[in-house]
Amino acid sequence: MIILSKQNPLVKELASLKEKKGRRRTGTFLVEGHKMVREAVASGMDVVRLVLREDYAGERYGLPAVVLGQDAFAAVCDEKTPQGIAAEVVIPERSVQPPQGRCLLLDGLQDPANVGAIIRTAVAAGYEDVYLAGCADPFSPKSVRASMSGVFFARIMQGTQEEILSAIAGLPVIAADMGGEDVFSYAAPEKFCLAVGSEGSGLSALVRGRADVTVCIPMDARTESLNAAVSAGILMYALRTKI
Amino acid sequence: MIILSKQNPLVKELASLKEKKGRRRTGTFLVEGHKMVREAVASGMDVVRLVLREDYAGERYGLPAVVLGQDAFAAVCDEKTPQGIAAEVVIPERSVQPPQGRCLLLDGLQDPANVGAIIRTAVAAGYEDVYLAGCADPFSPKSVRASMSGVFFARIMQGTQEEILSAIAGLPVIAADMGGEDVFSYAAPEKFCLAVGSEGSGLSALVRGRADVTVCIPMDARTESLNAAVSAGILMYALRTKI
Repeated sequence: MIILSKQNPLVKELASLKEKKGRRRTGTFLVEGHKMVREAVASGMDVVRLVLREDYAGERYGLPAVVLGQDAFAAVCDEKTPQGIAAEVVIPERSVQPPQGRCLLLDGLQDPANVGAIIRTAVAAGYEDVYLAGCADPFSPKSVRASMSGVFFARIMQGTQEEILSAIAGLPVIAADMGGEDVFSYAAPEKFCLAVGSEGSGLSALVRGRADVTVCIPMDARTESLNAAVSAGILMYALRTKI
Repeated sequence: MIILSKQNPLVKELASLKEKKGRRRTGTFLVEGHKMVREAVASGMDVVRLVLREDYAGERYGLPAVVLGQDAFAAVCDEKTPQGIAAEVVIPERSVQPPQGRCLLLDGLQDPANVGAIIRTAVAAGYEDVYLAGCADPFSPKSVRASMSGVFFARIMQGTQEEILSAIAGLPVIAADMGGEDVFSYAAPEKFCLAVGSEGSGLSALVRGRADVTVCIPMDARTESLNAAVSAGILMYALRTKI
């Protein structure tokens, strides 16, 4: 059976996953495109159902699937030129808990594409525990896309600054901030938490107050700052001793 | 005099600067917002005129200015919530010539926001000579915005792969590519050209063929790649010896 109407309740529910309110109601998010769906399945994410366009003829992974007409499928997807396959995936709910290795704390980052790109880099650089305090939702379409499959692999934990600082109690906190010491000459301990603030306003007073050391990226005097994702990437790699 | 009509020839010409065709016709691009205009003036860019919204009451830098009504100003700007000031600035035309120090070659990068963010990082990290071959236009609104004031400070040179490779003849070329040696253990020479390809297809055969060494960013096995701007930023900082 092919669902054609954009007014169909399931189509409306799937389309609502573009918004945080919709994702909160269902506890799921949408993963779009061949590659991302394949990675979501391979990484062991809990897939509720595939969402397929009527002309889709590819792999179905033995998963339950719903088939939509062109218009209904387009209404569900956030991509401008969707590929004919998407998956509704359960948001991995994790309570804020101590990290397993070195970890990353994002403090107030509002740009979903930056949050996603940073999660992508965090997995690559071996910062699997990613704490988010007051950030853009990592399960929004923009963030999921920018993360590539990062949101499937990272242990994302969202909470208040207080909850997160309490979970990482005892761990050295390395804060990224203007005027800190040169990150390239700083010798990092084996385990630590790197705290990165927003591009506009930096770290919150609470997180800054908990810092054991402050590091910065040396920059030409004419440059005030770097893009938040670029900056987080440089810091993560500069601090990591080995992968 | 306040120009109210969006059909006014000057308003139409300014609005055309959003497109490459328009910029090519006038040889200028538009810089939007208080901070970017201030930096353009301070950096010595050749400003043709300020473009002001009728309610603008700030600094005019002793420059010629045209004042537009709300609608006409909105039609000219690319920003969703423009700040009331923009500047039409002459595109610095540079012939492709040898670099002054270490330099960066972007090969086929199509995302304007990535091109801009990379130029921003290049200035910060001391790669002032930036060669672009087959890339998105660095003077598009998205790229200019992402570069912050990077496009004012970098020596941007656009040309074919052949022209650029000929200009950097004799300089060691460090190519970024999968399977290269770990950039963090590679000892870079004092002067070199870092060549970075597109996120999708990497370096062109021509540039890859000219590489003296290939380096890569070590990554967790589950990660295939990083965002192009993040990756270029990590590479530039890993290779630079001092600023």
